[in-house]
Amino acid sequence: MRIVVDGMGGDYSPYAVIEGCIQAIKEYNVDIVVTGPEELINKELDKYQYNKEKITIIDCKEIIENNEHPVMAIRRKKNSSIYKALELVKKGEADAVISAGSTGAFLAGATLIVGRIKGVNRPALAPIMPGKNGPFMVIDCGANAECKPKNLVQFGQMGEVYFENILKIKNPSVGLVNIGSEEEKGNELTKEAHKLLKECNFNFVGNVEPREIPTGNVNVVVCDGFVGNTILKTYEGVAANIFSTLKEEIMSSTRTKIGGIMLKPVFDKFKKDFDYKEYGGAAFLGVNGICIKAHGSSDAKALKNAIRQAISFHENNIINKIKVHIEKKLV
Amino acid sequence: MRIVVDGMGGDYSPYAVIEGCIQAIKEYNVDIVVTGPEELINKELDKYQYNKEKITIIDCKEIIENNEHPVMAIRRKKNSSIYKALELVKKGEADAVISAGSTGAFLAGATLIVGRIKGVNRPALAPIMPGKNGPFMVIDCGANAECKPKNLVQFGQMGEVYFENILKIKNPSVGLVNIGSEEEKGNELTKEAHKLLKECNFNFVGNVEPREIPTGNVNVVVCDGFVGNTILKTYEGVAANIFSTLKEEIMSSTRTKIGGIMLKPVFDKFKKDFDYKEYGGAAFLGVNGICIKAHGSSDAKALKNAIRQAISFHENNIINKIKVHIEKKLV
Repeated sequence: MRIVVDGMGGDYSPYAVIEGCIQAIKEYNVDIVVTGPEELINKELDKYQYNKEKITIIDCKEIIENNEHPVMAIRRKKNSSIYKALELVKKGEADAVISAGSTGAFLAGATLIVGRIKGVNRPALAPIMPGKNGPFMVIDCGANAECKPKNLVQFGQMGEVYFENILKIKNPSVGLVNIGSEEEKGNELTKEAHKLLKECNFNFVGNVEPREIPTGNVNVVVCDGFVGNTILKTYEGVAANIFSTLKEEIMSSTRTKIGGIMLKPVFDKFKKDFDYKEYGGAAFLGVNGICIKAHGSSDAKALKNAIRQAISFHENNIINKIKVHIEKKLV
Repeated sequence: MRIVVDGMGGDYSPYAVIEGCIQAIKEYNVDIVVTGPEELINKELDKYQYNKEKITIIDCKEIIENNEHPVMAIRRKKNSSIYKALELVKKGEADAVISAGSTGAFLAGATLIVGRIKGVNRPALAPIMPGKNGPFMVIDCGANAECKPKNLVQFGQMGEVYFENILKIKNPSVGLVNIGSEEEKGNELTKEAHKLLKECNFNFVGNVEPREIPTGNVNVVVCDGFVGNTILKTYEGVAANIFSTLKEEIMSSTRTKIGGIMLKPVFDKFKKDFDYKEYGGAAFLGVNGICIKAHGSSDAKALKNAIRQAISFHENNIINKIKVHIEKKLV
């Protein structure tokens, strides 16, 4: 299989991106196309010993920055690394695309260039996050700031396909993010969505309060993109704050420094268990091709894992399974 | 001053509530009225030595449970501990009311019985939370699942009054919760609210992404009640998960147990710094009386701190200051 990677996306591009690609061709025997300024990409590639047949470059000079208007940027910069990468999937010349660049531009570009799966009203960004009792998916996490109730049903359908096929969890649970456990709680969107979700033939478990989400007891939690993005970023912010404060406190005295050394195995396990990088990127579900958004701060490992995730997507024929599932027309 | 406390509210009522009241009359020389079944309340009070003149009971037999419909419960149970407590503030027979009971019933009751401050469109629940660099307020945290842009402006005004007068922070910063830092990001509500907030004469600092909120760098963050409640509960859920996992891991071997003992000062400081109980309860701002919602899981200390907070509210004449501020009619 052949994966195209946006060489210029993310805080540590191109070097971390290229390092991730090098690791991936060695571990997974995949073919990779990198988009970006050829000279710059080659300079990074020259640092490594690798099978030159496995990586090709599509030269393009433009770069879309995070602060650009997503739709405008995609329309104007047709020679950008994101645009060229997405185009390759559209043309069928790559089986999947990965970018750690501007989320807005990647989602807008994926929708405009790759296009939606027939029947999907709103593609959704769906990261997998580490929970106490297992990974969970929050869908949508920012592609749709406003949603209709029926969109949330489709999010549940797509999340179900992902969990069953990529994470191999049978009959995964689907919950509705809400600010109360009772059916009549919430805003207009959640009240209506609840009614529709109850009628679905997947394993709908009712409302899930945000306090319960990090346990991972519910596999797929559906919400509009504003709420999902809020959950994702609050999660990251609280965890980052706790760990940075802990670190400062541990470094504050000899006693606590020794304690920190004694607890190193605990912190290491923690780091591993709560590392979103383990799960690759956030899948953009509902578009007619495999589009993975890697975290903006992705290092080589995160990028490599996003490539592994794309391979799994392809091998498990997820796009087709979503098509079949959506055709059941639950809403 | 005289504070009325719902004797039957919260997971640990009446015993933790009564213990908190006893501590408060000793520390703050305040007069307290407790609502609830007299026999039950007296049984708790009998456990303590205290000045009997400082605590009186209003006997009422009904209790509103968390799973009852808030408005229905308030309308039907006029002899409940929450209703009676709110009624006392309405009649001017108490200067403030505190309940750790049903949030929905308390908010509905406060709005219906105590009433709104003239000019306030939507009263809002406003907890103070511990941030890395200082406390911050999220307003609204659940009173209004749907909001209009102008509501968010009033939330900012009320939050400003609180920070200046209770937390003594001059010219506090007000931010808009949004899923991007740029002005045009977000949903219809945040786009419109941003325009209005920019025109306000308080210290509006623009959009605040949820990842930044836990730093506490912005004092007051405004949002609709669905989003605010999501932030609050995600915050609680992530923190609880991290600490419970840490505890389990520390207890898993002799080495890590010793490490845990060495780090006890760190964890103790953490517990104190990140303890929402330190800040009392969540003020319900915009109603025409001091109404404090204590956390459902309040222990005696949390209840006592909520009483301290109510005293500070009263001494600083917050209700009147909000009135004056709202009359400036920013929207």
